[in-house]
Amino acid sequence: MTKAPTDRTRLRRMHEKGAHDPALIAALVDALPLAHIGHLVEGMPMVTPTLIWRMGRRVLWHGSSASRMVRAALAAPVCLTASGLDAMVLARSGLEHSVNYRSVMVMGQPQALRDPTEKEDALRAMMEHLFPGRWQALRPMTAQELKATAVLALPLDEASAKIDASGPADPAEDLDWPVWAGTLPLLRATGTPQPAPGLAAALAADPPAYLSAFRFG
Amino acid sequence: MTKAPTDRTRLRRMHEKGAHDPALIAALVDALPLAHIGHLVEGMPMVTPTLIWRMGRRVLWHGSSASRMVRAALAAPVCLTASGLDAMVLARSGLEHSVNYRSVMVMGQPQALRDPTEKEDALRAMMEHLFPGRWQALRPMTAQELKATAVLALPLDEASAKIDASGPADPAEDLDWPVWAGTLPLLRATGTPQPAPGLAAALAADPPAYLSAFRFG
Repeated sequence: MTKAPTDRTRLRRMHEKGAHDPALIAALVDALPLAHIGHLVEGMPMVTPTLIWRMGRRVLWHGSSASRMVRAALAAPVCLTASGLDAMVLARSGLEHSVNYRSVMVMGQPQALRDPTEKEDALRAMMEHLFPGRWQALRPMTAQELKATAVLALPLDEASAKIDASGPADPAEDLDWPVWAGTLPLLRATGTPQPAPGLAAALAADPPAYLSAFRFG
Repeated sequence: MTKAPTDRTRLRRMHEKGAHDPALIAALVDALPLAHIGHLVEGMPMVTPTLIWRMGRRVLWHGSSASRMVRAALAAPVCLTASGLDAMVLARSGLEHSVNYRSVMVMGQPQALRDPTEKEDALRAMMEHLFPGRWQALRPMTAQELKATAVLALPLDEASAKIDASGPADPAEDLDWPVWAGTLPLLRATGTPQPAPGLAAALAADPPAYLSAFRFG
């Protein structure tokens, strides 16, 4: 997150934030389903919001086999960043304002899954991650649908996590300045599921438990 | 957002989503304070989460004058994307699952604000956007703090907005498949403000109104 820390706070935060712990990186990928992927398109960066999921030590995403984004991801290394904004941090000076957040950044060359079974397993894993138990209840995927869908995978080898969960770090001489200081938590929640128009009454009356269990961010 | 739409849904969504309307682009920049900026670093894309704000027809952000991100942004064009995930869309087939979202993408060459007065005006505008009325209550900024902070600006000339707020688009032959279908709204809210340790009791007892009025996403 951009800010201009003093040397004092920079040292503290480097200690708190930098992390290459594989378990932490995996946990962040699992918790932050919306990633922004930077591709190289004709020498320029292009950042695309994309849903991600994880299988072991790889992060995956999908798209239309014909899309520019998929072609760009296969042609050159990408940078995938997923972030969650957790709180606004209000200090006594403008400079010390910041945000609490979690983010994970992964760099490398994505590969497309080629084997249809492997692709279908990956798409099932995405659905099971989001809505456990739903995949088996869906109208089964056709070979044509599977062919039209590209599934990309990127190893979590070159990845880093950052977490800042601190409060304002005002220097001592500012602590008595008469302004409110502290953190404003930012929360996420799911609303009431909205059945599709025309959904059978019995289905609409009984929304699956995975809807209320859904967590994101 | 990644998915592999059929030709039918692709046409409908191109109509719904593509937009270069300046008022819509401005409204999305105002509503989505967390952007992901793609920089070119040694020929590779690097995506950094960053708070943004708007002044007229420009989007702005800030960082340490010495940071790699600021140097990269001044050396080559960037792609700035801000997104909000609004709902999960559950269809009868895996292929037709999607998400409702809003996003704005801006491309171009950022410029650093050089004039100290212009920089301070821009930082005040950021604070006024987030927490109206707070800036004047803060410990005033020092010349050294202003110098250590880089403020970057990018015109909103080369920008596009995408909004998808639809429900599942199953083909007619799938509509009777016996599975729940519809949308699961994703909501954002603020929690109870947490005063900094040691904050004067009178200040802690009376949190400013802009905290409860804060909206994001």
